[in-house]
Amino acid sequence: MKTSTLEDIQHLFSSQKEEILEDFFTLLRFPSVSAESPYQSHVIDCAHWLSEQIKGIGLQVETWETKGHPTLFASYLEAGPDRPTLLLYNHYDVQPVDPLEEWESPPFEPTIRDGEVYARGAQDNKGQLFYVFQALKFLMNRDGRLPINVKWIIEGEEECGSAGLSGILKERAEELTADYLAVVDVEIPGPGIPGVVLSVRGIMTTTLELYGSNTDLHSGSHGGMVYNPLHAMVELLSKLRDEEGRITLPGFYDDIQDLTEEERSEINFDFDEKGYENIFGCAPTGGEKAYGPQERQWIRPTLEINGITGGYGGDGFKTVIPAKAMAKLSCRLVPRQDPQKIHDSLELFLKQHLPPGIEMKLVPHHGGFALRSSPHGTHVQALAQAYSEVLEKPCRFILSGGSIPISSELGKAAGAEVVLLGYGLPTDKIHAPNEHFGVERLKQGMMTIARTLEILGE
Amino acid sequence: MKTSTLEDIQHLFSSQKEEILEDFFTLLRFPSVSAESPYQSHVIDCAHWLSEQIKGIGLQVETWETKGHPTLFASYLEAGPDRPTLLLYNHYDVQPVDPLEEWESPPFEPTIRDGEVYARGAQDNKGQLFYVFQALKFLMNRDGRLPINVKWIIEGEEECGSAGLSGILKERAEELTADYLAVVDVEIPGPGIPGVVLSVRGIMTTTLELYGSNTDLHSGSHGGMVYNPLHAMVELLSKLRDEEGRITLPGFYDDIQDLTEEERSEINFDFDEKGYENIFGCAPTGGEKAYGPQERQWIRPTLEINGITGGYGGDGFKTVIPAKAMAKLSCRLVPRQDPQKIHDSLELFLKQHLPPGIEMKLVPHHGGFALRSSPHGTHVQALAQAYSEVLEKPCRFILSGGSIPISSELGKAAGAEVVLLGYGLPTDKIHAPNEHFGVERLKQGMMTIARTLEILGE
Repeated sequence: MKTSTLEDIQHLFSSQKEEILEDFFTLLRFPSVSAESPYQSHVIDCAHWLSEQIKGIGLQVETWETKGHPTLFASYLEAGPDRPTLLLYNHYDVQPVDPLEEWESPPFEPTIRDGEVYARGAQDNKGQLFYVFQALKFLMNRDGRLPINVKWIIEGEEECGSAGLSGILKERAEELTADYLAVVDVEIPGPGIPGVVLSVRGIMTTTLELYGSNTDLHSGSHGGMVYNPLHAMVELLSKLRDEEGRITLPGFYDDIQDLTEEERSEINFDFDEKGYENIFGCAPTGGEKAYGPQERQWIRPTLEINGITGGYGGDGFKTVIPAKAMAKLSCRLVPRQDPQKIHDSLELFLKQHLPPGIEMKLVPHHGGFALRSSPHGTHVQALAQAYSEVLEKPCRFILSGGSIPISSELGKAAGAEVVLLGYGLPTDKIHAPNEHFGVERLKQGMMTIARTLEILGE
Repeated sequence: MKTSTLEDIQHLFSSQKEEILEDFFTLLRFPSVSAESPYQSHVIDCAHWLSEQIKGIGLQVETWETKGHPTLFASYLEAGPDRPTLLLYNHYDVQPVDPLEEWESPPFEPTIRDGEVYARGAQDNKGQLFYVFQALKFLMNRDGRLPINVKWIIEGEEECGSAGLSGILKERAEELTADYLAVVDVEIPGPGIPGVVLSVRGIMTTTLELYGSNTDLHSGSHGGMVYNPLHAMVELLSKLRDEEGRITLPGFYDDIQDLTEEERSEINFDFDEKGYENIFGCAPTGGEKAYGPQERQWIRPTLEINGITGGYGGDGFKTVIPAKAMAKLSCRLVPRQDPQKIHDSLELFLKQHLPPGIEMKLVPHHGGFALRSSPHGTHVQALAQAYSEVLEKPCRFILSGGSIPISSELGKAAGAEVVLLGYGLPTDKIHAPNEHFGVERLKQGMMTIARTLEILGE
């Protein structure tokens, strides 16, 4: 069975590669940017197209309306009550595309270069969604059934906070009930290296606005007079981290649940600093000095400035003191840290350090808790076995620095044990220009999902 | 003579106001933005139109080519060798107009509201240039001659550093020779309050660029790993000032020539804090805590952040760690501070404090020395008398926080004693949206220039 499934998919991918990629490209051509209002109708079109595709392979599909974009809920429950139920999670929305001028090919016109598909969403998350779809389609076509019960949530707001899905979880709890939740939205440790992801970080996001004078002022007539909002901004933001790279917000680290020695020993913290520098052009010198780069990425919280704007940014020079300044701030959080509590602490800290003559507004965006799973669960073990078969190497247990806030909420609503998996690579440029995903990984993902379902059904 | 001149101008302004304003509007309609390349042909058109106007009143006009925009040199030397020579200075270029959406009427379509002309350059410097022109035109028309020898420099690059004029000063020194230089580009202390400006501050301007990774990164996968250039930016910039508002650059204050007690006693440091807050919506809380607002504006140097850009600044949120960040920085300098030395000190300081994993570039823009004159000069006294006659109040001696780097260079080349004058007000919104200048001040400026020439000729 195992060998034949991998061989069957290998064969299918060779003989029908063009058709498979054509469907993938159709999915990528929908500019389903959830955060920007001009794209709203494309988000809906994308959901509708997906729904029809999934119905086409024999699953039930419902479109669940939310206060935001709709969530698709597909299901196959005919494997019988003695078989486990696996809830799968993907999202069909994508990140904004700016800076557009840095894309080598247009973000919504998928293009293959050197075996990689370039498009917004090629990896995050349409690529990962698409191999799940292909795996289910393959099993249904070949066997006329799935080896276990499957539920599949595909949401349309992951890139802007999952508020819609989050808001209907309680009322949909019964339909969502599952033994296991597999969130298919993360990375493997490196090309061809299998790894099951046991945790994601939580997140807090917010916009800080600072106001000084009621109009932009001339820095000759007013320099030394008014308190420049940009000075206030650099003073406030620089106070958020100390010389050791530690976040200085009072209580920031108080609630953290550290890994036990045993948990630590089961996770692979290997990190190739030289390789990182070769790829990204800089050594991993950020964050807390007391920790190694892989610890800083996986098990330590962060505070990052995701944007600052204010004053003149064009060519030449303009001697202006701006009336306002703005910054986008986010924290990645680890287990037990509460995003709302962190936001409150940040607000208090900023207010306490606000210079005279400056007013502030802090506008929260989406947030969510971190998630951490044990390596011993049946689903985790099944997935590790599938990965090992496909990539022909022992499977590692790793963590992820990213955040999928809906994971822990969804796991709780479904009463399911959670695991995270994916075929992303750190070089895929998700959330950046020239996002891409490998055609080979599309096939490996398809194999891994199909084999996981089979192993869980044994 | 004195009374009749003021009365004559009053009469002229009443009877020919429409024609005078029509000419003024024509001057304002040229979008002579010197710093932005798409406007280059308009800068030249403006110079050409002005040249024709000045020839029309009987002055010699030469167009001096420079490596940048041309400088106009007008002269009237027929008052004879026993009369003094006054060199006047104005500029016909203007600041950029962004943010364009904040203008209530288009910047190059002059509009009068409540007696104020709204347009880019309405005050800085086309308004002040235009009343000089009207004063010379009035005297030439009425008397057929000027009471003293006059030279008039009108340059086209004041708003972007005066590099062109600066570069030809040595070769043009003989033609520029004058007893006095009057730079007509500053403010009076308040509406209807006469004041001669004895100094302007120097300036240093520069762009700081910081580079981290070779591409924008996802703040989940890379947060805590790379050194975020925006963190480096806020840390570096916050180190440039201490808790007391003092600039921390080594040697920054070393060369400063403080005012003597006698000089101090001749200058009016009155400042209306409440009035300032009413106009600009914020108290004057910036700068060095050890000094009052008027001292901070006039006799203390500053370091201001004129712009920061980096990362995401749009609606919603984007969890990006940007590959680069940029800041525009400027210092206002006081007598004896050397802009080049300050720039070198800034560069060294930034390099010494640059975090690991971050690279920097510092790109200097224009700079210039401060200037300070004695209140006892013949030309200063003549100007003070003219101001008192026109505004019917005793004339104060004040300083200016702004910078006209070319003033000291031009004064040196011409061998002239320098004074600064003008009819600007702090509320004119120069360098900002909705710049404006009063029609009444246009007339007062015309009277003040005409009377100054007459008094110097007595």
